[in-house]
Amino acid sequence: MISLAAMKTPTEPLSTFGRVLDYTTRQRIEFVNLTETVEQLISESGIHNGIAVVQSLHSTAAIFVNEWQNALLDDFRVLLERAVSADAPWRHNDPRYSDCARGNAASHLRTLLLGTSAVLAVRSSRIVRGVWQNIILAEMDGPRTRSVSLQILGA
Amino acid sequence: MISLAAMKTPTEPLSTFGRVLDYTTRQRIEFVNLTETVEQLISESGIHNGIAVVQSLHSTAAIFVNEWQNALLDDFRVLLERAVSADAPWRHNDPRYSDCARGNAASHLRTLLLGTSAVLAVRSSRIVRGVWQNIILAEMDGPRTRSVSLQILGA
Amino acid sequence: MISLAAMKTPTEPLSTFGRVLDYTTRQRIEFVNLTETVEQLISESGIHNGIAVVQSLHSTAAIFVNEWQNALLDDFRVLLERAVSADAPWRHNDPRYSDCARGNAASHLRTLLLGTSAVLAVRSSRIVRGVWQNIILAEMDGPRTRSVSLQILGA
Repeated sequence: MISLAAMKTPTEPLSTFGRVLDYTTRQRIEFVNLTETVEQLISESGIHNGIAVVQSLHSTAAIFVNEWQNALLDDFRVLLERAVSADAPWRHNDPRYSDCARGNAASHLRTLLLGTSAVLAVRSSRIVRGVWQNIILAEMDGPRTRSVSLQILGA
Repeated sequence: MISLAAMKTPTEPLSTFGRVLDYTTRQRIEFVNLTETVEQLISESGIHNGIAVVQSLHSTAAIFVNEWQNALLDDFRVLLERAVSADAPWRHNDPRYSDCARGNAASHLRTLLLGTSAVLAVRSSRIVRGVWQNIILAEMDGPRTRSVSLQILGA
Repeated sequence: MISLAAMKTPTEPLSTFGRVLDYTTRQRIEFVNLTETVEQLISESGIHNGIAVVQSLHSTAAIFVNEWQNALLDDFRVLLERAVSADAPWRHNDPRYSDCARGNAASHLRTLLLGTSAVLAVRSSRIVRGVWQNIILAEMDGPRTRSVSLQILGA
């Protein structure tokens, strides 16, 4: 069951590396591939072994890990649109209950289903991920400018 | 694309800080805002840079990050009730297959959709989060007393 | 509200421990209980306090934390099959849009709903988890051989 040799690093002092990245989206629902940027910043950080935490700093933009393929991204969008109807009578869109003028309840609810962060191991200065796994920002209420936090912790 | 200056801390020894918090809920589905407590404990921990892991210690209570607004919390509840019917013929509720007397399959399934933990960066002794982001405990099978673990790791 | 005494460890050097585990599944949708293996490896790692990150290295296999009971696992499967229809006209399955020959759009979409990692605190050489919480690998496109990364970070 255990395929690769375990890797235990000698004990070392801790380093942390933090950055906030901004992205401008152009559509209501849009996906942004963060993988390459995260990998470059791990390389810049000088951290060899540890973890990386990627967070959306919004409640209507999600982060997830899956394959990056145009056809599949379209399927993600369709699934979310079906799972959460934009024009159901959500209270967040109803001025009797909410002072939010954006009418974006569905954007919040779709973000709820996806989650807003990804945590990945860093080993030998690289993200541990499968061949098809990409780190994806999911804009659910665009177009807007969005901030993503990257925190790397390790040695 | 990169908005804020990167922050790399000098290497330092590691500190970890762990605590378990208890909450008593009063309704079947109820939301509890953990944000302020987590921020206070980060301040108490003396950890300046690192990460915070917030975990529900239950399989029928979830943790997620989203906006804290009464109207929207109501929409979260309605979405979960629609996505997972309480009275479908779930096996977990059927004495032929399950010795669980609570009949709470839907509580497990709704927790499955939300997840049971949140991981957030800690920078300059504060959680990294968006203006509208709150850390929320989602009771799916109340009323009960619930335990939440907070683990802070950093320097 | 705070039930247990806080535990703050003295500052110590950081250790990281990484391993990749392989599992062979036999069914289209199948669940594998990783809990005991993760606990054994934490014990082997010699790390007393910190966190454990468990990641699926695939975009059609998920990781989640919930109760391990046969009846409930069956309910998880039924919920996923209902939430994401296998034979809807997904673009990922359509040769006009996709070069994927596996026709596994539903496997990707079900994985999207569950997520691909779990992060848990480690305290006193044990995972912090509730009595009923297990760490579960969810095969969504079996039978296949799957890799799971475990990263432990702490002191």
